[in-house]
Amino acid sequence: MLPDFAFFEAIAEAAAAETLPRFRMSVAVDNKEAAGFDPVTEADREAERAIRTLISDRFPDHGILGEEHGDVGLDREYVWVIDPIDGTRAFISGLPVWGTLVGLYHKGKAVMGMMDQPFTGERFIAEPGNAVVQRNGKVDLIRSRSGVDLDQAILMTTSPFIFPDDLKPAYQRIEQSVRLARYGCDCYAYAMVAAGHIDLVVESDLKPYDVGGLIPLIEEAGGKMTTWDGGAPENGGNIVAAGSPELHAQALEMLNRPD
Amino acid sequence: MLPDFAFFEAIAEAAAAETLPRFRMSVAVDNKEAAGFDPVTEADREAERAIRTLISDRFPDHGILGEEHGDVGLDREYVWVIDPIDGTRAFISGLPVWGTLVGLYHKGKAVMGMMDQPFTGERFIAEPGNAVVQRNGKVDLIRSRSGVDLDQAILMTTSPFIFPDDLKPAYQRIEQSVRLARYGCDCYAYAMVAAGHIDLVVESDLKPYDVGGLIPLIEEAGGKMTTWDGGAPENGGNIVAAGSPELHAQALEMLNRPD
Repeated sequence: MLPDFAFFEAIAEAAAAETLPRFRMSVAVDNKEAAGFDPVTEADREAERAIRTLISDRFPDHGILGEEHGDVGLDREYVWVIDPIDGTRAFISGLPVWGTLVGLYHKGKAVMGMMDQPFTGERFIAEPGNAVVQRNGKVDLIRSRSGVDLDQAILMTTSPFIFPDDLKPAYQRIEQSVRLARYGCDCYAYAMVAAGHIDLVVESDLKPYDVGGLIPLIEEAGGKMTTWDGGAPENGGNIVAAGSPELHAQALEMLNRPD
Repeated sequence: MLPDFAFFEAIAEAAAAETLPRFRMSVAVDNKEAAGFDPVTEADREAERAIRTLISDRFPDHGILGEEHGDVGLDREYVWVIDPIDGTRAFISGLPVWGTLVGLYHKGKAVMGMMDQPFTGERFIAEPGNAVVQRNGKVDLIRSRSGVDLDQAILMTTSPFIFPDDLKPAYQRIEQSVRLARYGCDCYAYAMVAAGHIDLVVESDLKPYDVGGLIPLIEEAGGKMTTWDGGAPENGGNIVAAGSPELHAQALEMLNRPD
């Protein structure tokens, strides 16, 4: 049986208690990888610890896949997929477009998901048949936008420079096909697709914890999210999220044209 | 005599009454320029109308330079410089990083400025000797970050593709010099410099209304904002805003190296 939204809300509160007081404060920024800039903040680690504690107390037989503290029981029936701060670069830049991502997989399929942005007070949550945003004590159903063709679509991606050389032509084709392309919003962009404000996110080389919390938001709001070759998105990789199955098909066709 | 913050707050409230109800709604998007994508929304026009009414009622002898409704009395001692929605692309994408910009020039020099973001509830205001952010009924002094050299700086710009060909090498030099470069936040990036969360904004070909409300925020918070050649920023153009005079000098030196 799936948990209710209240459990996700408890997770969001516990995470926000670690992240929000450290947002826009001077925080220690470690270098997770010597080559390249991948900051890990204290907020990231402490929020994941708080989330894992809640999950293991309540669901001791569930697995957990997390960014910061390693993996437990990935072969179990239920596995939680956690990114305590998706968008650490936004976080350290003071921009309120990072989020806490929590997904619940059942037999490898993402069935519930949440993106919580505690500074703006937006909490997007989805379960089978239901996707909502909570803010200021209000709960609104969210629906992604349909009836938008590729040439009218608003596209977002983290940066045009994230794509490896062999994927660049495909990304550039799609960027040149849309009405408007914007950069820099990580998980917040997927929430905007789910809520019907933009139409498309295209990214490459994502980890499971980058997408696990987002898949149910996109899918239950009426959109479609897969890898660039149309496969299941649960393990990450090269990802396309679209507001409608029709736009998703157009995006896939464009990405997979011969270079 | 300069107006007090309460007058800026009244302007922000009047503008927000026009912008916020239309944020994340379906809005008509005109094409201001046939070539290129420059949306103008009803919110933009109505907010500017509301702001101009307040200003002309209270200060009938002041000039007004606005994005949407033309210019009045630009040769007067005091001139208001208005951009009702800076970041229209963010606005139509549902992203809370647009802002209402209002600057007050005295004899051509920006002396007061405001950036208001009504969705997040952040209102940055500056007058001579004083720069603050108001949120949730709290008022905090803001200070930009000092002691950060170029190689440790966080840089933002609207997009790496805004620069004309002759400026691209200079922009690329500076992007390659910094610790982290991010895209896509328009006026919000300048507020983050003023509040000490990022260090540097570099942009090209700005209009006076893109910068008028921001110059006092940067300068009164301890930063420095000029054109790329070190000139006064009040008329827009190619702009550098830095958290400290020292970083500003480093940025100018890097931008002006021979290609």
